[in-house]
Amino acid sequence: MGSAFEDLQRALKQLPGLGYRSAERLALHLLVERPERLSLLVDALRGAADAVRRCQVCGGLAEKEPTCAVCSDPRRDATVLCVVEQVLDQIALERSSAYSGLYHVLHGKLSPISGVGPENLNMAALFSRLARGEVRELVLALPNDVEGEATCHYITEQLEGDSITVSRIGFGLPSGGGVFYADPVTLKSALESRRSYS
Amino acid sequence: MGSAFEDLQRALKQLPGLGYRSAERLALHLLVERPERLSLLVDALRGAADAVRRCQVCGGLAEKEPTCAVCSDPRRDATVLCVVEQVLDQIALERSSAYSGLYHVLHGKLSPISGVGPENLNMAALFSRLARGEVRELVLALPNDVEGEATCHYITEQLEGDSITVSRIGFGLPSGGGVFYADPVTLKSALESRRSYS
Repeated sequence: MGSAFEDLQRALKQLPGLGYRSAERLALHLLVERPERLSLLVDALRGAADAVRRCQVCGGLAEKEPTCAVCSDPRRDATVLCVVEQVLDQIALERSSAYSGLYHVLHGKLSPISGVGPENLNMAALFSRLARGEVRELVLALPNDVEGEATCHYITEQLEGDSITVSRIGFGLPSGGGVFYADPVTLKSALESRRSYS
Repeated sequence: MGSAFEDLQRALKQLPGLGYRSAERLALHLLVERPERLSLLVDALRGAADAVRRCQVCGGLAEKEPTCAVCSDPRRDATVLCVVEQVLDQIALERSSAYSGLYHVLHGKLSPISGVGPENLNMAALFSRLARGEVRELVLALPNDVEGEATCHYITEQLEGDSITVSRIGFGLPSGGGVFYADPVTLKSALESRRSYS
């Protein structure tokens, strides 16, 4: 095994979710078992790198156009804005078909311990958008952890005195999940967000 | 989300071990979080596709040269030949540092049910190598399953009357594995290959 194979394995191993063994397996798959997939993958990577950019409005993914498909869709409710940590969260919410407003992607969450401040996030653009006055409700779809809490707190603080309604998505037992399997934080949230049942 | 992103996701999803979600996560990682890794990956894929070829002797991976590093290493014992199903098996054996002979990669195993016959494998080259008379021992490092068994049986049959010693690697409990966790086939093999303990 020489260097080009090891280079490929190393490049694959750096990707999230791929360990040493799976990177090795992938490299061999692309070189030995299905070499035709290698050029397909190269083309797809090149194509996506050329076409995909950051949406100038929300920070999500745009293709070719400067704004993304959601931001440029006139049917979306521009009075509701949902703040998410990352593009994956936006995709998950879109998949649920439960939301018809716009998004704002922070590309991270506040973390004083890791040195992540508002200036490291797509935060200034959020307040510029809100300052334009069209947004009535801000939905914070941020994670149920310390950093998510800190980010929600920071945003709410900045908006003090504004007439914008700020809400945070509900936390509790996931669909199909049993109480037995839930972690303590989830159970605490589930208890706190209990509703009268009739 | 337009087509270039989806094309990339589709290309990634075709790879072994990557499902829908992990392909999505990888695509976003390469486009949003660490775009500099995308071109590194493209370069590594291109480089490997150009450099890596099938070794003309053993069927393993060769880089630039027509024969691989193992086949062209004069320190390897050319009288012992180890037959493996795939390149990954060869890599695992090399990693163990327990083998100093040469290899022959079949790129599959016999499977009458799936219609895989000797002509679909790197089998003819194996017998050509053996016919040259240098190999004294053939080590069958093929899996402990029906197809592995069939492949071993076929190879042994072809060599009937030859003076080559044919062995098969041992089967049993893996290192660190408890009896409780072992599957029935492994336990059967482990019992059959028991050795006197003193």
